[in-house]
Amino acid sequence: MNTKEAEKTKVLVINGPNLNLLGTREPEVYGSQTLVDVQQQLISLSQPYNLEVDFVQSNAEAELIEAIHEARNAVDFIIINPAAYAHTSIALRDALAAVSIPFFEVHISNIYRREKFRHFSYLADIASATLSGFGTYGYSLAMLAIINQLPRN
Amino acid sequence: MNTKEAEKTKVLVINGPNLNLLGTREPEVYGSQTLVDVQQQLISLSQPYNLEVDFVQSNAEAELIEAIHEARNAVDFIIINPAAYAHTSIALRDALAAVSIPFFEVHISNIYRREKFRHFSYLADIASATLSGFGTYGYSLAMLAIINQLPRN
Amino acid sequence: MNTKEAEKTKVLVINGPNLNLLGTREPEVYGSQTLVDVQQQLISLSQPYNLEVDFVQSNAEAELIEAIHEARNAVDFIIINPAAYAHTSIALRDALAAVSIPFFEVHISNIYRREKFRHFSYLADIASATLSGFGTYGYSLAMLAIINQLPRN
Amino acid sequence: MNTKEAEKTKVLVINGPNLNLLGTREPEVYGSQTLVDVQQQLISLSQPYNLEVDFVQSNAEAELIEAIHEARNAVDFIIINPAAYAHTSIALRDALAAVSIPFFEVHISNIYRREKFRHFSYLADIASATLSGFGTYGYSLAMLAIINQLPRN
Amino acid sequence: MNTKEAEKTKVLVINGPNLNLLGTREPEVYGSQTLVDVQQQLISLSQPYNLEVDFVQSNAEAELIEAIHEARNAVDFIIINPAAYAHTSIALRDALAAVSIPFFEVHISNIYRREKFRHFSYLADIASATLSGFGTYGYSLAMLAIINQLPRN
Amino acid sequence: MNTKEAEKTKVLVINGPNLNLLGTREPEVYGSQTLVDVQQQLISLSQPYNLEVDFVQSNAEAELIEAIHEARNAVDFIIINPAAYAHTSIALRDALAAVSIPFFEVHISNIYRREKFRHFSYLADIASATLSGFGTYGYSLAMLAIINQLPRN
Amino acid sequence: MNTKEAEKTKVLVINGPNLNLLGTREPEVYGSQTLVDVQQQLISLSQPYNLEVDFVQSNAEAELIEAIHEARNAVDFIIINPAAYAHTSIALRDALAAVSIPFFEVHISNIYRREKFRHFSYLADIASATLSGFGTYGYSLAMLAIINQLPRN
Amino acid sequence: MNTKEAEKTKVLVINGPNLNLLGTREPEVYGSQTLVDVQQQLISLSQPYNLEVDFVQSNAEAELIEAIHEARNAVDFIIINPAAYAHTSIALRDALAAVSIPFFEVHISNIYRREKFRHFSYLADIASATLSGFGTYGYSLAMLAIINQLPRN
Amino acid sequence: MNTKEAEKTKVLVINGPNLNLLGTREPEVYGSQTLVDVQQQLISLSQPYNLEVDFVQSNAEAELIEAIHEARNAVDFIIINPAAYAHTSIALRDALAAVSIPFFEVHISNIYRREKFRHFSYLADIASATLSGFGTYGYSLAMLAIINQLPRN
Amino acid sequence: MNTKEAEKTKVLVINGPNLNLLGTREPEVYGSQTLVDVQQQLISLSQPYNLEVDFVQSNAEAELIEAIHEARNAVDFIIINPAAYAHTSIALRDALAAVSIPFFEVHISNIYRREKFRHFSYLADIASATLSGFGTYGYSLAMLAIINQLPRN
Amino acid sequence: MNTKEAEKTKVLVINGPNLNLLGTREPEVYGSQTLVDVQQQLISLSQPYNLEVDFVQSNAEAELIEAIHEARNAVDFIIINPAAYAHTSIALRDALAAVSIPFFEVHISNIYRREKFRHFSYLADIASATLSGFGTYGYSLAMLAIINQLPRN
Amino acid sequence: MNTKEAEKTKVLVINGPNLNLLGTREPEVYGSQTLVDVQQQLISLSQPYNLEVDFVQSNAEAELIEAIHEARNAVDFIIINPAAYAHTSIALRDALAAVSIPFFEVHISNIYRREKFRHFSYLADIASATLSGFGTYGYSLAMLAIINQLPRN
Repeated sequence: MNTKEAEKTKVLVINGPNLNLLGTREPEVYGSQTLVDVQQQLISLSQPYNLEVDFVQSNAEAELIEAIHEARNAVDFIIINPAAYAHTSIALRDALAAVSIPFFEVHISNIYRREKFRHFSYLADIASATLSGFGTYGYSLAMLAIINQLPRN
Repeated sequence: MNTKEAEKTKVLVINGPNLNLLGTREPEVYGSQTLVDVQQQLISLSQPYNLEVDFVQSNAEAELIEAIHEARNAVDFIIINPAAYAHTSIALRDALAAVSIPFFEVHISNIYRREKFRHFSYLADIASATLSGFGTYGYSLAMLAIINQLPRN
Repeated sequence: MNTKEAEKTKVLVINGPNLNLLGTREPEVYGSQTLVDVQQQLISLSQPYNLEVDFVQSNAEAELIEAIHEARNAVDFIIINPAAYAHTSIALRDALAAVSIPFFEVHISNIYRREKFRHFSYLADIASATLSGFGTYGYSLAMLAIINQLPRN
Repeated sequence: MNTKEAEKTKVLVINGPNLNLLGTREPEVYGSQTLVDVQQQLISLSQPYNLEVDFVQSNAEAELIEAIHEARNAVDFIIINPAAYAHTSIALRDALAAVSIPFFEVHISNIYRREKFRHFSYLADIASATLSGFGTYGYSLAMLAIINQLPRN
Repeated sequence: MNTKEAEKTKVLVINGPNLNLLGTREPEVYGSQTLVDVQQQLISLSQPYNLEVDFVQSNAEAELIEAIHEARNAVDFIIINPAAYAHTSIALRDALAAVSIPFFEVHISNIYRREKFRHFSYLADIASATLSGFGTYGYSLAMLAIINQLPRN
Repeated sequence: MNTKEAEKTKVLVINGPNLNLLGTREPEVYGSQTLVDVQQQLISLSQPYNLEVDFVQSNAEAELIEAIHEARNAVDFIIINPAAYAHTSIALRDALAAVSIPFFEVHISNIYRREKFRHFSYLADIASATLSGFGTYGYSLAMLAIINQLPRN
Repeated sequence: MNTKEAEKTKVLVINGPNLNLLGTREPEVYGSQTLVDVQQQLISLSQPYNLEVDFVQSNAEAELIEAIHEARNAVDFIIINPAAYAHTSIALRDALAAVSIPFFEVHISNIYRREKFRHFSYLADIASATLSGFGTYGYSLAMLAIINQLPRN
Repeated sequence: MNTKEAEKTKVLVINGPNLNLLGTREPEVYGSQTLVDVQQQLISLSQPYNLEVDFVQSNAEAELIEAIHEARNAVDFIIINPAAYAHTSIALRDALAAVSIPFFEVHISNIYRREKFRHFSYLADIASATLSGFGTYGYSLAMLAIINQLPRN
Repeated sequence: MNTKEAEKTKVLVINGPNLNLLGTREPEVYGSQTLVDVQQQLISLSQPYNLEVDFVQSNAEAELIEAIHEARNAVDFIIINPAAYAHTSIALRDALAAVSIPFFEVHISNIYRREKFRHFSYLADIASATLSGFGTYGYSLAMLAIINQLPRN
Repeated sequence: MNTKEAEKTKVLVINGPNLNLLGTREPEVYGSQTLVDVQQQLISLSQPYNLEVDFVQSNAEAELIEAIHEARNAVDFIIINPAAYAHTSIALRDALAAVSIPFFEVHISNIYRREKFRHFSYLADIASATLSGFGTYGYSLAMLAIINQLPRN
Repeated sequence: MNTKEAEKTKVLVINGPNLNLLGTREPEVYGSQTLVDVQQQLISLSQPYNLEVDFVQSNAEAELIEAIHEARNAVDFIIINPAAYAHTSIALRDALAAVSIPFFEVHISNIYRREKFRHFSYLADIASATLSGFGTYGYSLAMLAIINQLPRN
Repeated sequence: MNTKEAEKTKVLVINGPNLNLLGTREPEVYGSQTLVDVQQQLISLSQPYNLEVDFVQSNAEAELIEAIHEARNAVDFIIINPAAYAHTSIALRDALAAVSIPFFEVHISNIYRREKFRHFSYLADIASATLSGFGTYGYSLAMLAIINQLPRN
């Protein structure tokens, strides 16, 4: 992370495919919070700190890749819920590896309770850290981990 | 399926990557019918019934996902030929699972005669039913299966 | 298929082990139709066409094999629900390969929703086409596929 | 092998499923000899020796098993072409192991040139010897191996 | 289990392929008791109770399947030694699943001391319970487990 | 087994990790009997015979190993429910192999109905016999198998 | 979770083998905080809430199992860093499953960056949630997830 | 290849996801050349010949597929660096197979020195040829291979 | 095979590594015949026919390869006991494939009774036929198969 | 290794589960030497050198782990016979990795002659060296390897 | 590479087993060029540069290894077509690793179109680069890659 | 071992491929001792005993095999560092098995720290003992193990 003294620490929150439906599909699995609710919580949480938070959601692998490319030299941390692309997209992995921004991988549900093909993530071994099963509160935990790393003055 | 008494039963026919080339590439494998021919047959077949049929073809995984999202609460049945994405796209599976619309998986050629990596489908275990190897007539068979489920009055 | 102009096209419908119980066991899985019901539907369906339909059911692998042997040079199409033998019988496969009659593999339930050992079929790669999960209507769909291949006069 | 001096050495030749079609199906693979031709050759071959040769062919696993049971204490050598059951029948293996009669496993075609599932035999590791790919002459070779073991007087 | 008050509890004891040779083949492995001996023991054991015990042995998969079909609504418990079919017959599994009779899987020898392909059973996960290695006394143990479940009056 | 004429036959019943909770956790899976109940039944069952039964339960692999070591030359039969250690402890296997006491492996639930990792046991191939799924009555069955081996006088 | 109105919510923090060395071994991997530091942070974090936090560390699988047993009916949440036992102990899994206390699995380092055998956890699929790679701050995140679930008054 | 006498031979150079970052990310792995540099080299190299070279780069699988579709009947050779899609995209494979244009697969780095999941390519077995590890000079080598196949006049 | 009317049919008998020890090592496995004995038998056997038999034995893979190269256009049939190289040498396979001489693969012992790594042969699927377990008489059987293919005049 | 000039080089010899039985169980496998005999030999062997040798044996994984923890900064070399824990204990591996003491892994019997599950060791890749099959003399060889590394003065 | 200013850059071209037959065997696979043709092309290609090219072909693994040993400190680049040894020879890999000369692995045919066992190369991950399927022109491409690395003056 | 009273015990030390480079290649891995150094140490070590030590090194599998053949009845013990052939040569294994001379397998580096394909040895399960990772001192340890087995007079 570049320290950029007076500048704000920038956090990009990326959500992958089907997460636009959050809160409306299978609420017993994913809870009833929408993606907008999640984003507001993250903004509230970051308010007291010198943080700037941006959001992107896309169902398109290429748009996620390009959002990551644009983050290069512009963003300090990424929080990413890659959804299904965690299990299939080496291109997404390559984008994250290429920009060298520390990132946190978040899964809303506990992926180890689900189908076998969801147990493996192409991102996990290059992530800073990974969490799974905390519901939408998982995004907040990732943000708290970032806040915990901010320089205290 | 919502019964929607006076309303038409809506069927969405989705075609995945490379199927825009249907009828022009490898006709010995896929036959000489184009996608337009297939669509006209399906319309003819559905005419006598209280059915409305829409079509979408895309090479883009995200466009297929979004077509499925839009079908939520608007479509009663999906007929999908996921083509190569059957074997690689968990995101497509998630979209179909999220909208909870019963769907039929159609493959034109017999996928078990082809490469090993075409024998597994991420959609098969959440499909209502699946068929493979009936040529383009497979779409008609899926439509007939839908017609067979229509309430008879 | 020999065209045999004035002659009827002959279809043999073969049902494998345990299908004699159809309609009486696990109706939530297999529906409440009996094998007799299925046969009557297939006869009705074939009536308007120059088709002759015969039926055989056996729990014995050898009887199925011999029914296939006898079909040689006498039958134009086979519709087969091999049931459990799909997953274990190379001898059945060899019989079907030996007589060179185009055949359609039908499974009443969606075999991809069931145990892993039901996902593989020794017949699938030598079948003309295969369908799974359409309930007992699957037999009718296979018959419709045959009718669709009949010479139109 | 019991030597039974004055008695004839008894050989049982067993043929498994689909071999009743020999010579009529896929002659480019299996040759044009019928099973009757093969049997006559084996009889001719054994004539000069103190040998009695019997034959059984069945498509039924149970009949093969029972033929083997009956051979106990009555037969000195078995030549068996288990066909597809080589790859699927542990029961056949158990029958052969139970009667403790030395046996030779014969495959007409070279099973290693065929589908992967034909490369493994449940009989091979308890056979005296095994041969594959010699065409119908393979039976004669097995008989010659038996003749070679006869006591010379 | 139907309680059928005044009626006897019916137990069907099924023995699979090659078990007709019991006591005569490989006695160091399977002991010297014959199947008749086993049956007499089971009858003796059941005498003091309101139990009726029937027996079937067959080397034919189809006969075993049909014995199970006939047991539907007529038999309360099955004790089955499927022998080799434990490892290869999905059809047998399907028959047992179809009739919904609680059953106990018995193997005379300890199958985990034998070839790797004997370690897996298609029946074990739908059996009530399974035992292996108790010699022919294993049948008696299974019968005792049934007796233990009888209503005590 | 040493016959030790006038001496009692000694049986050691070993229970592995978490079995101290028996009867109190998940009674729908394991039944409502406690380990004390089980032990009393085994004592009752052994009373008429010249048997001495001892019990040990531990959650510690090392304590189980040491109980087995102490059994050497002092115990004639072991009944062991290794619980989870069946699937993970080679050290337990080595202890049982080292003392050369015939032992019976008991699992209360049917382990083949549970997670895949419970299907393999490090003890099964060195056990005299193994049973699974008979509930707590399984211990009694194992004891009956021992009683059945006692010299009758 | 029992709500136990006036009572404190009880949290048990369990640390597995080798974690007593925390802060002193491989600080470049695990950081320089000791287990005492971690515990003090968790106490500070919980202070404002109606929470009682207890700690246990052991290198002995059996002691961890027993700590879990004792937590039954006494503890509302468990935070567990199973360390190496995550990958080898089914007994630990069984203990956690038996007591039915919701638990959070914490790994200090990112286990997906390490040896292949650390990628699988026997606990993950029965955990409420799991996190890995947040350093010792991961314990705090798990505590924050618990706090987030406390009833707000 | 159509010979098209007076016409130019057309070459399409396709670059997959993340290659827009070439020369700027991880230069120790991929070198410091940008994609523009590569393209200029290929143009220089082709100048002396009757060659027309076009370029496409996209992070979107669908755009790559469509570029390939458009190349049908318009392009004689394809040089493709599929990047991550080599390992995950059957749709891309299908597009290349459908247009039947001979193509060369190029990887800048030696993919066999990298993660295991990069060792397999869905394109390799339908490519004319494949090369890996020559740095950006690999594109030139592929172009030289095309030039080598041009008709010499 | 070139018929070469007046010319002799040439057979090359190749023996691989360690077969120079035949008859002296492990006679209970390989019999007591030496390689010289085997060769004399083959010569005797071929005498009545228009056959010329040559022999080569080498422990060196390269010498075997070169013997095969030299056989090109000079030899009509090869009998090869590749010994251990059957399981490890693709180079030997390539040599045999390159010269296109029909060959018979012979193994003295039954390789399916031996270690798992001896069950696979790199030669088997390109051999005309293969036999295993007939002892040294296996060479004679292969020669008889050649004689059986000779033109009869 | 700290050179600690005037100080003695300290060696800790650790023996894992069941090794307390050494010399008394299966002497044909493990020889007739007891663990005390082994220890006396190691003391004799080390006498001429500036070496101090300590011993620990435990059947408890945790006690072995703690012995290793205590060795930190106190011991220069470890000789460890992990017995069964070699194959199952990641915790033991972690302990050895944490203390960074060079260690030698010793197995008395040749583990490659034994069950497949004994061929893998969790310790081998972090050991300095490993030996197997030298009987109890293997401990002496490991000690000689340590002596060979002592500074010579 | 030693720069050796005035000296020539030395290239060794190594060809493995069966490549002495190049141009004469299976020309439809390998083309009609002989190894001599290939060598002359490489010499022509290198002429304008300060390059010295040597050639070795052997069917013997050991001769290839020794040629590599002799190249140490004498050769700057190796072009190697290991043929079948690519897939089986760790010894060849070790030789190349030992001499630390950068090398290029060349396969004439596209190995990914061939048998599965040809898809893996023991050399690929230590090669500088690898190419496959360019026919004999592949050698020239490797030489051009070397020329491209020569210092330009 | 033949005791050959007055005769010397003969030891053959065999070194496989690439070991002629010992001491000159990768000294950080293999140390700086040459093979000659190793041999002199072994001679020194054996001097006080009634031992005769011979040496052979070859890069050719066949020469190693023949050296082993010649050792039959002439050598009492073999110390072999098979290098890469440990992982690929069944022929070497067969040679060692054929001569029945007890042998010790030595690897200079710790093969379990290296590539996965070096973890398996075709020799290990027929070796008397095996050691790995002791550097060149490993040869001395093997010699000491032999000396330890010499009859003491």
